[in-house]
Amino acid sequence: MEIHEFQKMMRHLYFQRDSDRGVEGTYNWLVDEVEELGEELRMTPFDKEALGKEFADVIAWLSSLANIMEIDLEKAALDKYNHKCPKCKKSPCQCTF
Amino acid sequence: MEIHEFQKMMRHLYFQRDSDRGVEGTYNWLVDEVEELGEELRMTPFDKEALGKEFADVIAWLSSLANIMEIDLEKAALDKYNHKCPKCKKSPCQCTF
Repeated sequence: MEIHEFQKMMRHLYFQRDSDRGVEGTYNWLVDEVEELGEELRMTPFDKEALGKEFADVIAWLSSLANIMEIDLEKAALDKYNHKCPKCKKSPCQCTF
Repeated sequence: MEIHEFQKMMRHLYFQRDSDRGVEGTYNWLVDEVEELGEELRMTPFDKEALGKEFADVIAWLSSLANIMEIDLEKAALDKYNHKCPKCKKSPCQCTF
């Protein structure tokens, strides 16, 4: 599925709730989801299915936040990262820092 | 571009560096990018182009982390969010909490 299409699906599912919650509340929720991803990464034994769900939540909430801010996540991603490193302009990246 | 394709592009650009940096370092960088997104959201006046770049960085680092963990971000996202809310199973979401 295209990034744009996923964002559109999230808009259909959640835009009213996201919009009511607002930017700050939705951003805070994204932060919580990133923390949960971090907790899952530290789990032993490693649970790949549970980890996948945490990755899903992060991209879902990032899409929700982009919807509220009227940012096209796919366009933004490809404007910056489009088959070359935005810093060194090489593919693969050859940044030296 | 498909989520899977974007992740693959990030793998081509950054996998060696991501892999050398490791899970913890890459996760910490993702957290930094989420914080930068938060800072940009609070900026006045609102700068949509700068904001787009911060969204781009978050999805880029999320993809890098998924690459290291061998998680298919698109599959994970669609396994959990596939045209209905994973909690109430409705579209749009009708969760009452």
